[in-house]
Amino acid sequence: MDLKSFIDAAAGRKKADMVFRNGKIINVFTGEILENTLAIKDGKILGYGAYEGEIEIDLKGSYISPGFIDAHVHIESSLTTPEHFASLVVPRGTTTVVADPHEIANVAGLEGIRYMLNASEGLPLECFFMLPSCVPATLFENAGAKLSASDLAQLAGEPRVLGLGEMMDYPSLIAGDPAVLEKMQMALDRGMLIDGHAPMVDRKELNAYIGAGVGTDHECSTPEEMRSRLRRGMYVLIREGSAARNLKNLINGVKSYNLRRCAFCTDDKQPEDILKDGHINYNIREAIDLGMDPVWAIQMATLNPSECYNLKGKGALAPGYDADIVILEDLKSIHVRQVYKKGVLVAENEKPLFSQSSRLTEAVLNTVKVRTIKSEDFRLFLETDVVRVIRILPHSLVTEHAIRKVERDEGNLFQIHPDLDILKIAVIERHGGKGTIGLGLVENYRLRGGAVASSIGHDSHNLIVLGDNDDDMALAVNALAASGGGLAVAAGGKLAGLLPLPIGGLMSDLPAEEVSASLKELLNTAVHTLGVNKDVDPFMTLAFMALPVIPELKLTDEGLFDVTKFEFVDLCVK
Amino acid sequence: MDLKSFIDAAAGRKKADMVFRNGKIINVFTGEILENTLAIKDGKILGYGAYEGEIEIDLKGSYISPGFIDAHVHIESSLTTPEHFASLVVPRGTTTVVADPHEIANVAGLEGIRYMLNASEGLPLECFFMLPSCVPATLFENAGAKLSASDLAQLAGEPRVLGLGEMMDYPSLIAGDPAVLEKMQMALDRGMLIDGHAPMVDRKELNAYIGAGVGTDHECSTPEEMRSRLRRGMYVLIREGSAARNLKNLINGVKSYNLRRCAFCTDDKQPEDILKDGHINYNIREAIDLGMDPVWAIQMATLNPSECYNLKGKGALAPGYDADIVILEDLKSIHVRQVYKKGVLVAENEKPLFSQSSRLTEAVLNTVKVRTIKSEDFRLFLETDVVRVIRILPHSLVTEHAIRKVERDEGNLFQIHPDLDILKIAVIERHGGKGTIGLGLVENYRLRGGAVASSIGHDSHNLIVLGDNDDDMALAVNALAASGGGLAVAAGGKLAGLLPLPIGGLMSDLPAEEVSASLKELLNTAVHTLGVNKDVDPFMTLAFMALPVIPELKLTDEGLFDVTKFEFVDLCVK
Repeated sequence: MDLKSFIDAAAGRKKADMVFRNGKIINVFTGEILENTLAIKDGKILGYGAYEGEIEIDLKGSYISPGFIDAHVHIESSLTTPEHFASLVVPRGTTTVVADPHEIANVAGLEGIRYMLNASEGLPLECFFMLPSCVPATLFENAGAKLSASDLAQLAGEPRVLGLGEMMDYPSLIAGDPAVLEKMQMALDRGMLIDGHAPMVDRKELNAYIGAGVGTDHECSTPEEMRSRLRRGMYVLIREGSAARNLKNLINGVKSYNLRRCAFCTDDKQPEDILKDGHINYNIREAIDLGMDPVWAIQMATLNPSECYNLKGKGALAPGYDADIVILEDLKSIHVRQVYKKGVLVAENEKPLFSQSSRLTEAVLNTVKVRTIKSEDFRLFLETDVVRVIRILPHSLVTEHAIRKVERDEGNLFQIHPDLDILKIAVIERHGGKGTIGLGLVENYRLRGGAVASSIGHDSHNLIVLGDNDDDMALAVNALAASGGGLAVAAGGKLAGLLPLPIGGLMSDLPAEEVSASLKELLNTAVHTLGVNKDVDPFMTLAFMALPVIPELKLTDEGLFDVTKFEFVDLCVK
Repeated sequence: MDLKSFIDAAAGRKKADMVFRNGKIINVFTGEILENTLAIKDGKILGYGAYEGEIEIDLKGSYISPGFIDAHVHIESSLTTPEHFASLVVPRGTTTVVADPHEIANVAGLEGIRYMLNASEGLPLECFFMLPSCVPATLFENAGAKLSASDLAQLAGEPRVLGLGEMMDYPSLIAGDPAVLEKMQMALDRGMLIDGHAPMVDRKELNAYIGAGVGTDHECSTPEEMRSRLRRGMYVLIREGSAARNLKNLINGVKSYNLRRCAFCTDDKQPEDILKDGHINYNIREAIDLGMDPVWAIQMATLNPSECYNLKGKGALAPGYDADIVILEDLKSIHVRQVYKKGVLVAENEKPLFSQSSRLTEAVLNTVKVRTIKSEDFRLFLETDVVRVIRILPHSLVTEHAIRKVERDEGNLFQIHPDLDILKIAVIERHGGKGTIGLGLVENYRLRGGAVASSIGHDSHNLIVLGDNDDDMALAVNALAASGGGLAVAAGGKLAGLLPLPIGGLMSDLPAEEVSASLKELLNTAVHTLGVNKDVDPFMTLAFMALPVIPELKLTDEGLFDVTKFEFVDLCVK
């Protein structure tokens, strides 16, 4: 920006590039809505006042808001690349995100993060990044990478890297584990921000967690949890994603006094939910529906996340700020009519006015490295017929540790019993490492005549497959291997559906609408052809079966894991 | 700090260094006052909770607040060195200041700023600095230094330097003056903060000023002015100093919505006022007296200035924050019982528990470089007997541009008339430069039989002398030259009083109490021996006679200056 020419325009000695007339300007500093003319020059706000512009836009009474900021998001959860993600969320008013590329980092390490940095460069969606702090998530599984403090330090100087991503391993941090402290120190030494993730942690443990340098938390689920964090100086990021939805519970915890320390985020949101409900504009709408002052709600999506992450020039319509602007019809529906990024119109009527094909790099392609899987790989020898079973709970990531009596054949191999709802599940290391396969049993997924498989398996993203026969399980897994990852359904010895996710086995290189349509079809097949329990999301439930930090019983590529005891356990009860 | 040992103590596995029991903890994040135990380790807050400490302090119901922050102060106005200033303000609860060493910079340039950095290093008062942006203040006077953008850049990397000091030359900035823009760009390129000073500037001019990068203003005098700045994203620093007192007018402009963007400052406060009324604790007390919620008032002295200046770990009693702590008897008198700096008790019952003699450097000593002044130097030849006179207004820095008929002798030299209140004033360049002397006339100071002189003369700090006879004027000036600067009163051919200010001609190396007592004596002499107008502060009024940016008529070492026309004018009206 040429400072002189900007000042000349601000002072009214030169025409602005663009002015918006007859708009209702939302002022997140004062809580006011001002009817005035807003002027823009060189992609920045000049201010409001009696300006004239080269381009003059009559807003006819519409509202004009700063662009929305998602304070914490895993772009990978949209199943699309940063480019297609931008096309998806920018038309819904999101102009900036703080992303944690934790999923791709578990697959492709630093190169995965570099891919995200590169793919998001120059988009109409500004993407800032937090460096994933917990890769792998635990020592009880084999991921595609291990990122130490010194690995992360290599990316700490990148201009769009803001800090250290969510410190999910709060037990180790609170216990003072040296490897975790080294990562903390790496960030602290550089004056970087550190994101948190500490559900239910409280009192002295919470003091230790925050005192070590963690500044945000997006895992609050009650107003009490929220208050204990605000009191200790944390920013609370109120999350409304596809699975985890905390807004309704937390919104009453936002008071005039602590408002400044509250912001919105989505964390994980699938493409169909974004297409249907919106992105951060959905958080705003929900908050208003629940009785919040609209300018408060918009502040939580603009100024507050900007202050939290020290995003200079973002989050307000004030002189010198970036002209990231959202035009809203009203302050109830939060329907986004237009979006401007740094003064350029980039979306209108929920459609992007830009397109950008995915910029791929070798490091994130062909990441499903697994030998051809045979039906025999799923043979499950049982010493006894009383076994531990992962019982899926409806609409929850938590599972129950159940004990069941099952059927065995003459060779003591597990055998499906037509009247028992107990299915086989396998987690297969796919990063080209040990090639280990963990086998287990699942209740309450309910499927007949096939298998469902996924290369999205939090957080290590090994292959997960679940089925009632070994042939379909092998078929589904081999289909994923052939397509570089994705989601698959096999039925009656045939591939009944496949959504390829060739980028890290996590993301498609197709637009979100196509991904969403494919996914819908797959879900239909899972539910209608295979009869999967309707209270279970066939793929999302599968994707969390291998995450050994969510209670009670999980399966990794190394075996069955009792999360409560935090140790591996035998399948058979002896 | 050893992170491991801090976490161990926070989690309760090790004893804290110190705990405060039975205190009422002021929480500036939530507005609450919590009765709980506060624990400290390694100079930092561990948090509140069930802690035990090596040292246990029973607060018996006293309040415990974060240390106060002065968001904008010229330490030189206390007439003491940073060391003695610390002894003065720390016992009153101020543990951090953001200082603009603008006065010493006008005398000694970069070396003057380096002196302040060095003298303030390691004090129990943490001093951050803004680099003076306007040295000299104008082109119409000769100061001791000229600081360009590249000069300032030399100090930009110092750890306690936060940004560019108050941009007083707002007309040049708004006009786009290249030298001013260069300074702005220097700060912007380094991501530094920029302080403002823009009384009465509004609308598009204000947009230009703020859009260029200025982030604060401490010159608001009305709620409307305050609002126009808050709306545009500025922080408003509410000032309560010795002369400029804006708190009463502005405090009602602080609303729950904009509170976060309001902070307290003193700007310029003399030692006797600090001794009598207090420092930032006075701002807090006044705000509470005027009806503000005490926690709001404390927030404006703690968290808000910390956020404004991005002072990491300051301004709150939260885990990981610096243990800068003030113990208050109550939330009305704001009487400070104890002050802890980074966990160390540094003041009790308004007395410092530390002492530090002034660390002087050659660059700030012997700065009054002027030849011996003779009575004849003050001879004032007048072409006509109708002249321009600087009319002093009571309790104001603004002067009136008056036209008066005066007495001349046979040689057309100005002559005191016993019935006319018109006195001679002179400004003498004293930085070893041109040796220029500006001569003028003053009304409403009212003095008989002597002279008053000062080496404090904003902003160039040339010598200023005012009197009714040339002999006493010369005597007072030569006394200042001999003592390296200061304040002097001459009466009837004798030196009637002298307060030496050998550091830059601005500061004493004695404790504030002694300086204050000396000053009191001098003021007495000026008022009682010489009969100076009681509605005028003899020295402060003098000190602003040479500042050619405050209307209407001023005198610099280069002559009489019409501030309204912004040009030199003749003394005589022809």
